[in-house]
Amino acid sequence: MSKVTCDMAVSVDGYTAGLNQRLDAPFGDVDDVLTRWMFEAPEENAEERAAIVAAGAFIMGRNMFSPDRGAWDLDWTGWWGDEPPYHAPVFVLTHHEREPITMQGGTVFHFVTGGVHEAMRLARAAAGDRDVAIAGGAATVNQFLAAGLIDELRLHVAPVLLGRGERLFEGIDRIDLVPAGVRRTDLVTHLRYQVARA
Amino acid sequence: MSKVTCDMAVSVDGYTAGLNQRLDAPFGDVDDVLTRWMFEAPEENAEERAAIVAAGAFIMGRNMFSPDRGAWDLDWTGWWGDEPPYHAPVFVLTHHEREPITMQGGTVFHFVTGGVHEAMRLARAAAGDRDVAIAGGAATVNQFLAAGLIDELRLHVAPVLLGRGERLFEGIDRIDLVPAGVRRTDLVTHLRYQVARA
Repeated sequence: MSKVTCDMAVSVDGYTAGLNQRLDAPFGDVDDVLTRWMFEAPEENAEERAAIVAAGAFIMGRNMFSPDRGAWDLDWTGWWGDEPPYHAPVFVLTHHEREPITMQGGTVFHFVTGGVHEAMRLARAAAGDRDVAIAGGAATVNQFLAAGLIDELRLHVAPVLLGRGERLFEGIDRIDLVPAGVRRTDLVTHLRYQVARA
Repeated sequence: MSKVTCDMAVSVDGYTAGLNQRLDAPFGDVDDVLTRWMFEAPEENAEERAAIVAAGAFIMGRNMFSPDRGAWDLDWTGWWGDEPPYHAPVFVLTHHEREPITMQGGTVFHFVTGGVHEAMRLARAAAGDRDVAIAGGAATVNQFLAAGLIDELRLHVAPVLLGRGERLFEGIDRIDLVPAGVRRTDLVTHLRYQVARA
């Protein structure tokens, strides 16, 4: 059966980004420490990199698509260039209606104003028998966790304590997990958990 | 050379205890999920259990010794019974002077009113060429981390998101770590990091 996955790159103290995220600084006041493993050791982490974009549909928050909180810049189509790595429908949670954007390579950004359950319904329909992935950011993941909508949590833990920034796992109640795997490379520790069903 | 270690049992979201810690509930409003690995799978986790109490001297916060924030209960000698597992000097950070308490098996509780640096000086002197261990709780670990006084951080991550409680890693600035080991058993994932020196 298809499942809902969530991959997040985090610091050891649970931050997914620094403060002051901007269009020219998606991780805010933090260097690339959280994602260095993806770019400096792609082969060593090939399995986890591939899993991140293996889903049949994706859901992300508005800030993951664009951190500009004002009006939409209609020329902006995300951080990922003309051919984003998703190659599938991506449902962006927002309060502002917008026409879909079709990118090269099969990525289509859809904009959903009806909240997490509507986004999940649309993403499941689009994914068919493939997985749905919650792509971030932290606030969006927290919403889906709180709603009990994530089956598998994959944390990619960078060896750093950041001390401040955007924190994963805020505003949730207790959730029991089942360890499903762990793998360490020099730049990251990959932790995989199944989310126990209440 | 001897080093300063720190073992902490934490949830995936970084909590070391729930709220409302009391004499009859050292982990507060949380069951034994954080320490189940120690008691339900002692052999499987024997190596990590042994390392926790291998130091030549220990430092702990007042609340780790006794969460009663009022006057000292002079009959209270900690959670650990007549023969605590430390078998070495334990320096308890406090604002209140108190005579040392000698327990069976070599554990002696000393009470230090001069702060983290004085406690470290006394513990190093007592440990000789053996390691010094920061035994918790979270607030004490955070103080020693912020002061740059920890060399090796060993996190024992229980498979649970608690959502609230006493959080490790509050009030620190950025600290770079070096992954030194990872091992998973059914009830816990052991992560070991060296703390990079600025």
